[in-house]
Amino acid sequence: MNQIDTYLDEHRDRFEDELCELLRIPSVSADSAHRDDVRRAAEWVADQFRGMKLATEVIETAGHPIVYAQSPAVPGAPTALVYGHYDVQPPEPLDLWTSPPFEPTRRDGNLYARGATDDKGQMLTHVKSVQAWLETEGSLPINVKFLIEGEEEVGSAHLDAFIEANREKLSCDCVVISDTCQLGPGRPAITYGLRGIAYYELRLQGPDRDLHSGSFGGAITNPANVLARMIAALLDEDGRVQVPGFYDDVVELSDEEREQFRALDFSNVEFLKKVGVSGAVGEEGYTILERRWARPTCDVNGLWSGYQGEGEKTVLPASAGAKFSFRLVPNQCPQQVSDSLDAFLQGMIPPGIEMELIRSHGAPGVVVPLDSPYMRAAAQAIEQGFGVAPVFIREGGSIPVVNTFGELLGVDTLLLGWGLDDDNTHSPNEKFHLADFHRGIKASAYLWRELSRVGTAHQRT
Amino acid sequence: MNQIDTYLDEHRDRFEDELCELLRIPSVSADSAHRDDVRRAAEWVADQFRGMKLATEVIETAGHPIVYAQSPAVPGAPTALVYGHYDVQPPEPLDLWTSPPFEPTRRDGNLYARGATDDKGQMLTHVKSVQAWLETEGSLPINVKFLIEGEEEVGSAHLDAFIEANREKLSCDCVVISDTCQLGPGRPAITYGLRGIAYYELRLQGPDRDLHSGSFGGAITNPANVLARMIAALLDEDGRVQVPGFYDDVVELSDEEREQFRALDFSNVEFLKKVGVSGAVGEEGYTILERRWARPTCDVNGLWSGYQGEGEKTVLPASAGAKFSFRLVPNQCPQQVSDSLDAFLQGMIPPGIEMELIRSHGAPGVVVPLDSPYMRAAAQAIEQGFGVAPVFIREGGSIPVVNTFGELLGVDTLLLGWGLDDDNTHSPNEKFHLADFHRGIKASAYLWRELSRVGTAHQRT
Repeated sequence: MNQIDTYLDEHRDRFEDELCELLRIPSVSADSAHRDDVRRAAEWVADQFRGMKLATEVIETAGHPIVYAQSPAVPGAPTALVYGHYDVQPPEPLDLWTSPPFEPTRRDGNLYARGATDDKGQMLTHVKSVQAWLETEGSLPINVKFLIEGEEEVGSAHLDAFIEANREKLSCDCVVISDTCQLGPGRPAITYGLRGIAYYELRLQGPDRDLHSGSFGGAITNPANVLARMIAALLDEDGRVQVPGFYDDVVELSDEEREQFRALDFSNVEFLKKVGVSGAVGEEGYTILERRWARPTCDVNGLWSGYQGEGEKTVLPASAGAKFSFRLVPNQCPQQVSDSLDAFLQGMIPPGIEMELIRSHGAPGVVVPLDSPYMRAAAQAIEQGFGVAPVFIREGGSIPVVNTFGELLGVDTLLLGWGLDDDNTHSPNEKFHLADFHRGIKASAYLWRELSRVGTAHQRT
Repeated sequence: MNQIDTYLDEHRDRFEDELCELLRIPSVSADSAHRDDVRRAAEWVADQFRGMKLATEVIETAGHPIVYAQSPAVPGAPTALVYGHYDVQPPEPLDLWTSPPFEPTRRDGNLYARGATDDKGQMLTHVKSVQAWLETEGSLPINVKFLIEGEEEVGSAHLDAFIEANREKLSCDCVVISDTCQLGPGRPAITYGLRGIAYYELRLQGPDRDLHSGSFGGAITNPANVLARMIAALLDEDGRVQVPGFYDDVVELSDEEREQFRALDFSNVEFLKKVGVSGAVGEEGYTILERRWARPTCDVNGLWSGYQGEGEKTVLPASAGAKFSFRLVPNQCPQQVSDSLDAFLQGMIPPGIEMELIRSHGAPGVVVPLDSPYMRAAAQAIEQGFGVAPVFIREGGSIPVVNTFGELLGVDTLLLGWGLDDDNTHSPNEKFHLADFHRGIKASAYLWRELSRVGTAHQRT
């Protein structure tokens, strides 16, 4: 691997510059005003693959395109499918960014931009590692396929259908995703568990226009008051979801896993301090790590109604709305949760209010077995890339496609996270630690070698 | 009064054009971006008075100016103080206006514009009636003073101090305000009771930035969930305010007054239909009119948190806020209500949340005695202006200055409303029925004569 190591060292600046190029494209998939930017990002990624002479396709969907690429066949060698996404979260609120979200800026060894870590930076590590192999060795030791989508931040609406329709093309021995975090700086981690999600928009309509709250208040049902009551009813003061049956299928943590969590040397005080709070409410009987990684919950993601401007406006609003989501754990079923929620809220609708509950994306939680040779190969590669063996952790976020790969391709996913939990993903001032960018590329380069030593699933059975 | 009647008839178009001029000035007092427009409106009103050769002043305050004017002294005659306001509510949401809020537009006998009825149109009726007297008779039969302010829609922050410092200048036998409604089309009303108000902004701060709801949800207190819980706790499902002690000082309606309300031939079905709802929640045991006019309540006026844009954003918001207000009735004390509220909410703050409760304007409810000669004079004048005797009603809105006039000047206020309850005050498509504009001017012209017949309070004692 000497040649490859040297190549990586010599191309650090170029890799960073290329990442900056991609970060300058505001590929906000949630915002239709950015439709063309999303496409530009897809083409940028495709150009990377074309530059390496991979078989490359930009595949149209009813939404944003999917970029697919495939390295030259290495017969008899295993196949890794790298999944990533080139779309990003909306950057709002803009006034809280120190430097503009789409002008990547280096500060203190970090690169600041929307998408820096989620997922442009992490995704690019696997592109660059393949490039390093091809430009030094002339070929990869395994087969690598890339599936890079543009709708991850809006629920991957068209991805499942694509995977279902292209099982043969996407067949592989394992999936590799870098869209998660290390446990802390210099403490690389393999994530073996993720929470699922069920996301909703709740809209309440009261009177057909905003009314004077003096002339009408008390006699007309106020949708904002009702919205507050509905949202409040979802979660009790101790952080327990109140939707009937919500916990029925929840797989409880084993004593062994709880012990593993405890061994991780995670500081509650540091964790709270990092986000500027002195305390927190959470589900009774569970530690902060357990609450984040292995317990379901409900969070309001957005609220709106009436007058939000300066000063006072005595209005009884015509409507009110909220976005909120449950995080789910194995074996909760998003569909079942949604049905219970709907019934629960229907039962709370008072006279004078019309309710609409829009179900957005949903995905179950997932736990990947730790005892596979691919998992061991990944651990080896990370140790070589980061100079230290990884820990095995779970994460609270959701990567729904992990379920899909399991169900449709019958393979497990290696979640190799190069991020940090203070990278401000989905927040202002998102960043990626540049040292981790380069360590990630190196770990990825070693991963292709380690996987080649494992062989294919067929060879092993 | 023949000459005056003729004058009013001949100047209908001119009066409407002048009202349109004033309505074109976007004097939104709540929005500092409109500061100059608010001043322009003040100067426009002052120019009206100057044009009539009234002693006119534009008086600076720490906020928006007060316009004061005084007719030539009529010794021995009573004095009426006309109060009104030239500022308007914010026009948002703009997309719901059929014609732009500051381009007055005639449709179906109505004039549509922000401020058409609240209060530019109604206020102007008294200006035009004085003009009619001066230009036909050469003088008024009584003394008329005008106090027209520019901060009514933001709580009249500087008005009380001005009145307190100018008791002598403002001394009068009664106050006249037209900023209320008729009972229905062609059913003019004198409002003898108003609800008070206590308005708040509640701000909750959680983490120091928006967080990923997957990585942090369940372990960090979500300020939007807490906001919903606090707001929900204010009001029960039956419309009863839950702040401890809130009803302690409420003056209950007398059987006689409830009977009067019932006699008003008010249709609940029509009322609900007019605002597009098929039912409503309200306080058990009270009719819709009682709920609107004589019972206290709590309405959310605005809500905001997190992501409000298109699509999904899985954010745990850093902060959440609400504007809400209580309507108060005699003898509730706004200060006492605020203190109870503060204690109530303080008791609900969970770990990880900082709360700020901003108290905006407050005013107690008021009921004006019906058995005064000024009230009878007003009823006579309205019968002459509208061709039908007025009914006596209460209203759910608040005009805090009515309390101030009672306390500082020792006089009662005649609330002579020319508006309609579907005039969309504080809503998109605010309007003023033009026939009522002219009937209001005529009633006002007759009011000066009727009041001259009553004499001064001194003469009567």
